[in-house]
Amino acid sequence: MSHDNISQLGEFGLISRLTTSVTTGQGVLTGIGDDAAITQLSPGMQLLTSTDMLLEDVHFRKRWHDPYSLGRKSLAVNLSDIAAMGGIPRWALLSLGIPPDLTLDFLDEFSAGFLAMATEHGVTLIGGDTCSSKAGLTISVTIMGEQYPQQIIRRSGAVCGDEIWCTGTLGAAALALQLLEGGAGRTQENEAIMTRLLDPAPRVSVGRALSEAGLVSAMIDISDGILADFGHIADLSGVGGQLFAECLPLPGEQCQIGQAEGRQARERALTGGEDYELCFTARPDNHEKIASLAKKCGVAATPVGIVTDSKNVVVCDSHGTPLDMSRGGFNHFS
Amino acid sequence: MSHDNISQLGEFGLISRLTTSVTTGQGVLTGIGDDAAITQLSPGMQLLTSTDMLLEDVHFRKRWHDPYSLGRKSLAVNLSDIAAMGGIPRWALLSLGIPPDLTLDFLDEFSAGFLAMATEHGVTLIGGDTCSSKAGLTISVTIMGEQYPQQIIRRSGAVCGDEIWCTGTLGAAALALQLLEGGAGRTQENEAIMTRLLDPAPRVSVGRALSEAGLVSAMIDISDGILADFGHIADLSGVGGQLFAECLPLPGEQCQIGQAEGRQARERALTGGEDYELCFTARPDNHEKIASLAKKCGVAATPVGIVTDSKNVVVCDSHGTPLDMSRGGFNHFS
Repeated sequence: MSHDNISQLGEFGLISRLTTSVTTGQGVLTGIGDDAAITQLSPGMQLLTSTDMLLEDVHFRKRWHDPYSLGRKSLAVNLSDIAAMGGIPRWALLSLGIPPDLTLDFLDEFSAGFLAMATEHGVTLIGGDTCSSKAGLTISVTIMGEQYPQQIIRRSGAVCGDEIWCTGTLGAAALALQLLEGGAGRTQENEAIMTRLLDPAPRVSVGRALSEAGLVSAMIDISDGILADFGHIADLSGVGGQLFAECLPLPGEQCQIGQAEGRQARERALTGGEDYELCFTARPDNHEKIASLAKKCGVAATPVGIVTDSKNVVVCDSHGTPLDMSRGGFNHFS
Repeated sequence: MSHDNISQLGEFGLISRLTTSVTTGQGVLTGIGDDAAITQLSPGMQLLTSTDMLLEDVHFRKRWHDPYSLGRKSLAVNLSDIAAMGGIPRWALLSLGIPPDLTLDFLDEFSAGFLAMATEHGVTLIGGDTCSSKAGLTISVTIMGEQYPQQIIRRSGAVCGDEIWCTGTLGAAALALQLLEGGAGRTQENEAIMTRLLDPAPRVSVGRALSEAGLVSAMIDISDGILADFGHIADLSGVGGQLFAECLPLPGEQCQIGQAEGRQARERALTGGEDYELCFTARPDNHEKIASLAKKCGVAATPVGIVTDSKNVVVCDSHGTPLDMSRGGFNHFS
């Protein structure tokens, strides 16, 4: 369908079309349709709020990202922030700047993907904004969640001697981006890898379970590579850390690869963006409970390092020898 | 300064620079710097949330909007939504998509304006997102406020026989836009009119005072002209209304103008955008209390019509005769 259809709908017609299948949820008193949404926190809980902007040709490309997955991902990257706090996601706002050449089909698919991800996580769309964009598609999502104060996990709680953990596997999204930038299309063979970039699964249930069980001391979601993101935990906790390169959980497809490729896979695991896994720290005596709880949530959790009282975060080989790299990525000096 | 400076700062340097003068406020437990902000509602209050996106060359032009005022306005249009609910604004999120040619000076001024508006209204900036934009400057703001349930004013409460009121004067922002589009610059003579478009004052204190005094039945902010915006109240309340063209409060500069210009001024008052005044309905026996409370808040409040049990919103002349127009604007048939 053509842009004329979007114009003919008008803003209110468009909002009504995009929100037809919005259902109401926990704590929602007035959703879309007034000057502001009205919601109510669960008794004793505090509010968690985060927002992300996704711009066409900066964060996504229409030729790589199908609209349904893009809708899902727009919410997923926000859900990941609530997961990293140990929170329960509740409500979302979606603003769209719509370029003249965008089709109504694209918007319908985008909206279906966004709302499917919302439903999977018990989130209600309670508001937003739509306007026309003279440039590319502009997406801004705000997510709100809640949790009891004592179960909210900050970045600042890591303690020397804690183990450093991550969920899932690391580096797949960066590999997918590398493949797409190299001109590869989506195939049956690379679909699992591509999905990690194009339709990431936010670790909401494991994040919440770990925090509610009182097992973790600090947590962050991995959007810029575990080296940089654990670095934020280290900075805010006033600690350092050792990450063990050989412990990093690589995607299954990359387990049986040669030495040179193995090094690249570990680089991607350390510094690749958009994995949306969780990195957390925990006392060593919680080790077994964490492994078992993550398993119950259907997600692997892998110990990948140790919190130290140094001021630095270093990557070590299997002998404990620091590898030559900085937080921003490997330094290819050697 | 050049874009290089923004690049050299990096995302974290930029965030730190833009948020240096952020102070903490009511209910803020953790602001900027974790995966999500943590806040706490006042006991017994509900959460009010709204969001607006402002795109360069759609909602603003850099040659008309100085960065300081643009920063103020980005928050003001959101504050106006909280005002329309009778709410108390508390927390804001600010996301910026920054084009390569934007200077650091521009960003500093923008941020100073945004934070000045925040301080004036007791709002704390608790989070956001910054990224580079391949197109124009992209601004997305989310505002959160709170209020006791019984004092939140919806669009849906208007009752037949209620008076229709508006705050301030109407049509000045549309006149300012017309002048700018006609090539006029900002001068000492037109500064008052220009300010209404470029640096609007959200009616937070009068909106809150009216709702807390229990005087109003429905409320909305006027962003698309009172005809369309009262139309939303009418639709959601299941009522109609008569707006009296000669009662519309015009900006002072336009009081002593001829008949043709007077008609244009009334058209702008009815259908012009971006006034950010409040339109509300109230029982006639609240008339004196409303006038006096608004005066106490330093804002004029003018009765401009009456809620009817018809399905239509009509504009009438001084004889009660409907004028020839539609909600979308005057029909210039006659």
